[in-house]
Amino acid sequence: MKTRTIIRAAVIGGSGYSGVEVIRLLSRHAGVSVSAVVAQSSAGQRLDVLYPDLTGISETVLTTLEETDFDGVDVAFVALPSGEGMHVVGKLRSRVGRIIDLGGDLRLKEIGLYERYYGHTHSAPELLQEAVYGLPELNRAAIARAHLVANPGCYPTSVILGLLPAVTAGLLEPEVITISAMSGVSGAGRSARVDLSFVEVNENIRAYKVTVHQHIPEMESILSAVAGSPVRVSFVPHLVPLSRGIYSTIHAVMVPGTTAARVAEAYAEYYRHAPFVRLRTTPPEIRAVTWTNFCDIAPVVEERTGRLIVMSVIDNLVKGAAGQAVQNMNIMFGVPEHDGLRMGEVA
Amino acid sequence: MKTRTIIRAAVIGGSGYSGVEVIRLLSRHAGVSVSAVVAQSSAGQRLDVLYPDLTGISETVLTTLEETDFDGVDVAFVALPSGEGMHVVGKLRSRVGRIIDLGGDLRLKEIGLYERYYGHTHSAPELLQEAVYGLPELNRAAIARAHLVANPGCYPTSVILGLLPAVTAGLLEPEVITISAMSGVSGAGRSARVDLSFVEVNENIRAYKVTVHQHIPEMESILSAVAGSPVRVSFVPHLVPLSRGIYSTIHAVMVPGTTAARVAEAYAEYYRHAPFVRLRTTPPEIRAVTWTNFCDIAPVVEERTGRLIVMSVIDNLVKGAAGQAVQNMNIMFGVPEHDGLRMGEVA
Amino acid sequence: MKTRTIIRAAVIGGSGYSGVEVIRLLSRHAGVSVSAVVAQSSAGQRLDVLYPDLTGISETVLTTLEETDFDGVDVAFVALPSGEGMHVVGKLRSRVGRIIDLGGDLRLKEIGLYERYYGHTHSAPELLQEAVYGLPELNRAAIARAHLVANPGCYPTSVILGLLPAVTAGLLEPEVITISAMSGVSGAGRSARVDLSFVEVNENIRAYKVTVHQHIPEMESILSAVAGSPVRVSFVPHLVPLSRGIYSTIHAVMVPGTTAARVAEAYAEYYRHAPFVRLRTTPPEIRAVTWTNFCDIAPVVEERTGRLIVMSVIDNLVKGAAGQAVQNMNIMFGVPEHDGLRMGEVA
Amino acid sequence: MKTRTIIRAAVIGGSGYSGVEVIRLLSRHAGVSVSAVVAQSSAGQRLDVLYPDLTGISETVLTTLEETDFDGVDVAFVALPSGEGMHVVGKLRSRVGRIIDLGGDLRLKEIGLYERYYGHTHSAPELLQEAVYGLPELNRAAIARAHLVANPGCYPTSVILGLLPAVTAGLLEPEVITISAMSGVSGAGRSARVDLSFVEVNENIRAYKVTVHQHIPEMESILSAVAGSPVRVSFVPHLVPLSRGIYSTIHAVMVPGTTAARVAEAYAEYYRHAPFVRLRTTPPEIRAVTWTNFCDIAPVVEERTGRLIVMSVIDNLVKGAAGQAVQNMNIMFGVPEHDGLRMGEVA
Repeated sequence: MKTRTIIRAAVIGGSGYSGVEVIRLLSRHAGVSVSAVVAQSSAGQRLDVLYPDLTGISETVLTTLEETDFDGVDVAFVALPSGEGMHVVGKLRSRVGRIIDLGGDLRLKEIGLYERYYGHTHSAPELLQEAVYGLPELNRAAIARAHLVANPGCYPTSVILGLLPAVTAGLLEPEVITISAMSGVSGAGRSARVDLSFVEVNENIRAYKVTVHQHIPEMESILSAVAGSPVRVSFVPHLVPLSRGIYSTIHAVMVPGTTAARVAEAYAEYYRHAPFVRLRTTPPEIRAVTWTNFCDIAPVVEERTGRLIVMSVIDNLVKGAAGQAVQNMNIMFGVPEHDGLRMGEVA
Repeated sequence: MKTRTIIRAAVIGGSGYSGVEVIRLLSRHAGVSVSAVVAQSSAGQRLDVLYPDLTGISETVLTTLEETDFDGVDVAFVALPSGEGMHVVGKLRSRVGRIIDLGGDLRLKEIGLYERYYGHTHSAPELLQEAVYGLPELNRAAIARAHLVANPGCYPTSVILGLLPAVTAGLLEPEVITISAMSGVSGAGRSARVDLSFVEVNENIRAYKVTVHQHIPEMESILSAVAGSPVRVSFVPHLVPLSRGIYSTIHAVMVPGTTAARVAEAYAEYYRHAPFVRLRTTPPEIRAVTWTNFCDIAPVVEERTGRLIVMSVIDNLVKGAAGQAVQNMNIMFGVPEHDGLRMGEVA
Repeated sequence: MKTRTIIRAAVIGGSGYSGVEVIRLLSRHAGVSVSAVVAQSSAGQRLDVLYPDLTGISETVLTTLEETDFDGVDVAFVALPSGEGMHVVGKLRSRVGRIIDLGGDLRLKEIGLYERYYGHTHSAPELLQEAVYGLPELNRAAIARAHLVANPGCYPTSVILGLLPAVTAGLLEPEVITISAMSGVSGAGRSARVDLSFVEVNENIRAYKVTVHQHIPEMESILSAVAGSPVRVSFVPHLVPLSRGIYSTIHAVMVPGTTAARVAEAYAEYYRHAPFVRLRTTPPEIRAVTWTNFCDIAPVVEERTGRLIVMSVIDNLVKGAAGQAVQNMNIMFGVPEHDGLRMGEVA
Repeated sequence: MKTRTIIRAAVIGGSGYSGVEVIRLLSRHAGVSVSAVVAQSSAGQRLDVLYPDLTGISETVLTTLEETDFDGVDVAFVALPSGEGMHVVGKLRSRVGRIIDLGGDLRLKEIGLYERYYGHTHSAPELLQEAVYGLPELNRAAIARAHLVANPGCYPTSVILGLLPAVTAGLLEPEVITISAMSGVSGAGRSARVDLSFVEVNENIRAYKVTVHQHIPEMESILSAVAGSPVRVSFVPHLVPLSRGIYSTIHAVMVPGTTAARVAEAYAEYYRHAPFVRLRTTPPEIRAVTWTNFCDIAPVVEERTGRLIVMSVIDNLVKGAAGQAVQNMNIMFGVPEHDGLRMGEVA
C-alpha cells in the first residue's frame, strides 16, 4: 500500500524502452504516483498490452499530449527521440514545475556541436542554459536546485563515471582518450528495423557511427569542464547480442609518476558517498548491474605502457536512462537518493 | 530501513541458483531477515564474490552446516540437490520450527516411485507423510498449517497450474495428456558441465530425459489426486538457449460438449483469488514473467480436434523455485501472500 | 574452377533469407551457374551489400523481374511470400522449363483449404494439379519427372519426415497427433518488425498462430494421403531465440502391440536410401543439422503411455527450404542427389 | 568422390574445438585424407558421438598418441593446450615431415617472455628457432619452405592483420597501440567450467586477463619485427555472448601528415594478393566471416584526433585457428592456398 505518495509524475514517451522503464521503477517507488503516460502513436492502448509484464501492475491507458491533463503534475519525464524532446519540454515548461529530459536535446551547451552531431536544427536554444546536466555523482547540488534536468546519455554515463576521479585528480595526460564501448540492443530503442532484428544481431558484433557518434561531444564537453582544459576522446561503439547493458573499456595515458595506489585512492575518495557506484578490483560484469542503477568500475594501472585502463559497466536502461532519471527526481525533491532504485530496498 | 522484521530465515544451499534467488527475494522482504546462509563447498567465501550483483546488498559469509547457529531461526529454506535435501531436513527438523524444502526429496508420497525416478534410496520416509506439497493455488490452507513444505518442481508448477481448473471441473478425458516443455538453462543448476557450456547450448535445442524425467510422477500424483482417478502424462522437456523461464505447452482431450466458454469460466473461477496467476487470451511469453512470481496461462480450445491446448509460463527460479518458496513462507507465517514478491510492492 | 556447369539457374526473391540461401548453396555446386537474381524492392543493389558474407563470393546485382532475361535459364527458384509466388510462377511457366516454388501457394490441392488458412484468394488453380510436392523422401520418382515442384514448408518437412515410416507401416492410431515445434527466427523471414527485434525475441519464447497455422493443412493432407485415411494434427509452433533450426516433438498413439523393435525397423527400412535423414537413438540436437541438409530423427516408444514420441530436427533454411529445393533440382536434372549439399562434398 | 588425394594428415587433439574444426575443413578438402585423430582423454570413442554434426561425415575412432601409426602421415596438426603441444611436437618431429602447431608453445622466440606470460617452463627451446610464424599474409615464402609452423593465436591474427599495412608503411607513431577485442566463447576451448556455462555468459560481457594476456607478447614481437622498432600494445580482451568470432578494435596514433587516401592505398597494396583478407569501407561484422577463413578489415582515419582506427574481424576457430592451419598446409604442400577453405569452392 502506498501511503506516502507525495510526487505526482507524468511520463511522455511511455511506449519506448526508456519511458516504460521509468514507469516500472516508479511503480516500486513509495513516494510517487504516475498520473499520466503519453505516447502519441500508441494513444488509446493499454500499456500492459505493449508490455505484458505490466499486466496486473499497471492499468494505464496511453494518451496523447493534447488530451493529457497536467494539473497537479509535479514532475514530467520526457523520453522522446532527439529532435522531439525539446518541443515537448518547451510546451510543458510553464505547466510542470520540474522536468527531466531523457533525450539528447539539452545536453550540449553549444548549438553548433548539437547541430553537427545530431544532424538537425536546434529549435529551443533558450532551454540550454537552464538545463542542468543530470549526472548526480558530478552535479548533485545543482540538480537539487534544478527545474530542468538533461539526463545524460547512456555511453557518456559509463564513460564519464569511469574517468571522473582520475580527471579531477589530474592523473591523466591531456591527450586523446580512447574508448571502446559495447551496448545491448535496447540502447537503439524499440523500433521496426531489419538491422535490429534477432537474426541480424544474434551471433554478431558490429561497430557503428565510428568517429561521428553524437555522444562524443557530450563526453568531451563534460570532461573538459572537469579537467579545466580540452579533453578529446576517440570513441567506437559496438552493437553486441545482449538486450541490456553497456561495457566501456577506456585507455588513457597517465601523468608520469602516477601509481596504482594513487589511482585507487582517487577513485575511493571520489565515490565515497556515491550510493550507486561500486569500485571493483577485478573486471566488472554486465550481469552484476543488469536491472539495477549501479555503475561498476574497475580502474587498472598498466605499468608496462603507462596507461590507465578503466572498465565501467551499467544497465543502459537504468543508470544509463530511467534509473538515473529517477535518481535525479529523488534529488530534486529531497527524497532519499536511492528510493525506488535499490535492490533490497523497502520504502 | 527494515523496521518490521519478524521472521528470521536461514538458507541452506545458498550458493546455487535457487538458494541465491531466495536470498535476493528475502533482501526485498520487509518482514524477514536472513541470519545464516549455508553452503558446504563454498563455506568461508563471501556470497557477493560468487554473485557480484549482490555487492552492496549482502555482506553474508557462507558457512558450513556444522558451524551454523540455528538458535532463533524461524524458517529454513533447503535448496540442495535431490538426495542431499532429505538428510539436512532430517537434521534441522527438531531445531527449526518451519522448513521449506526446494529439492525433490519430499514431493512424492510413494517411495517406490521416488527410487525409480530419482535413482537412489530414500532415507527419510518418515518425513514424507508430514510434508505438504507447497503449491499455494492448490493447498493454501494446508500450507498455512504446515511445519514442513515440499516446494514443487519447476516443470510441475507450470504444468499443474495449467491444468488444475480443467481437471478440477472434469473437463478432460482421463487419457494421456501430452506436454512439451522448454526450460532455460538455470533449471539445470550452477555446475561445471560441458553440455551446459555456452557453446553447446547457444543456437541449439535438445530434448532430454525423454520418458524418464523425475517430474513425471510428481505431475501424475498431484493431478490424479485432484481428478480422483489416474491421470497419465507423456512429458518431453527441452533445453533451450535462455537463462530463465519455462514454457509448457499442453494438449489434452476434452470431454465431449466442452465449450470454450465453459473452459474460460472454469479458469477464471479457479484463479479468482490467486494473486500470482494471470490468465491470458493470447499466447503467453516468457519475458512477461521473468524475474517475477507470476504464472501466465492461456487455455485455448481447438474445436477441430476436440483438444484443450494450454500454454503456461513461469520463471523457473521464481515461481518455479525461490519465489514459490517465499510465497509458501508468507502463507505459513500469516504474512500477506505477495510480500517481497510483487513488482511494484513496497512494504 | 567450375568446369562441369550444365544447369543455369535463376533465383526470384533473392534478397530474402531463403533466396539467398539458395544462392549460397548453388555457389558451392559444381554443376550449376546462377545467371539471374531477381529482387523487386532491392533491384539495382549488389547482393553482397545486403549479405556481406558474400563479398568475394558473388558480384551479382539484383534485378527486377521485368528486366531479367530468362533465355537459357534451365530452372527458376521462386522464393517469394505466399500470395506472390503463384503470380510469378504463372508468368515464368512458359519461359523456364523447370520451376521450384519455395512458397506456400502450390502445396495444397484444395483451394478452399488454401484460402481459409492463407487468408487470401488463390489466383492460379490451374497450377495446383501440375505441382508435385517436393519431399524427396516421399516423392522422389514424381519429382524426377516434374516440371513444377512445390517445395514443402519448414515445419511440415520436419513433421512429415518424423512420421512417414510409422504412418506408412500403419503403426499409429488414426487419432489426433499432437506436435509442439520450435523455430528459429529466420523462419519468419527478413523483415522490419518490432516483434522480431532482438530485444523482443532474446530471453523469450512465445507460441503463435495456435490452431490456425497454415502448415496444419499441409501436414494433414500429405499424411492422410500416405495413411489412406484422415490424419489430424494439433500443432503449436513456438518462436525461440535462435537464428536457425526447427525442433519438432511429436506424440502419437500407437496401434496396440507395436513394439520398440518394430518401430526401429520401420524407420530404418524407410530411410535406408535417404542420404539426408539420420536416425538417432538419443534425442537429436539443432546444432548437429545447422547449415546442413540433414534431418535428424529419433523415434522413442513410451511403453507406459502407449505413445510414440518422435523428435525431428532440421535447419529451416536448408532442409526446410533452400537445401531441399536444391535437392529437388538435383533429382529433376538427374544429378547426384547430394551435389552441393553435403558437408565434406567436393564436386 | 575424392580422387586427387595426395596429402595424408593426422590431427592430435581432435576432440577440442580447434582440432575438430581442422577435421571439418579437411573433410571438404579434395587433396587431403585424415588418417588418424588422436585424443588422449576420449580415445576409443567415435568422433561423431562427441560432435553429432559429423554423423555420416566421419566414422573416425579417436586413438591415443601411443597407439597411433604415423607411417605415411605427411602432416600433423597439433591442437593441444599450451604446455602440452611442445612435448608432442618434439615426439613427432622425427616421424612426420611437416607439423603445424595450433597452440601457443612455439610462437615466441624469447623463452623468458613465454615463461612470464604462460606461467610454466618451456621444455623444448630447440624447436623455437626452427618454427616459422604461420601468418601467410606476412610469411608466405617462409611457410612454403617450413617443416614446422607455429600457427598464430586468434587475437594476434586479427590484430596483426589489422595493423600490418600501416606498420609496414610507417604510418603509425611508435607509441602504445590500444586494442579492445571481443571474443566468442569457443575461444576458451571445450571445457567444463562454471564461468563458461550458458547462464554465466548469456546477457553478460566481461573483460579478462587485463594487462597479462599471453597474446600480448605475440603481437608485440611480430609487430616490432615488422616495424623495425619496438611496438607496444595495451590490450583488453572481453568475453561476449556468441559462440564464434573475434572483433578487434584498434586505436593508433598516426604519423603527422598521414591522409585517409594514403592509408587506403597502403591497405589495398598490402593485401592485393591476399585471398582471405577483405577490405571494407564500412565497419565489418562478425556474421560476414563466421564459418569462413576471411579476415574483414576496415581502417578509418579520425582526423579530429589524429588516430587510425582499425576494426578487424575473424572467426576465431577458422582464420584464428583451424582455417589458418589448413591455409598454411596448402602453402607448405604447394596446393592452391584456398583449397578446402573457400565458400563456393569446388575442388
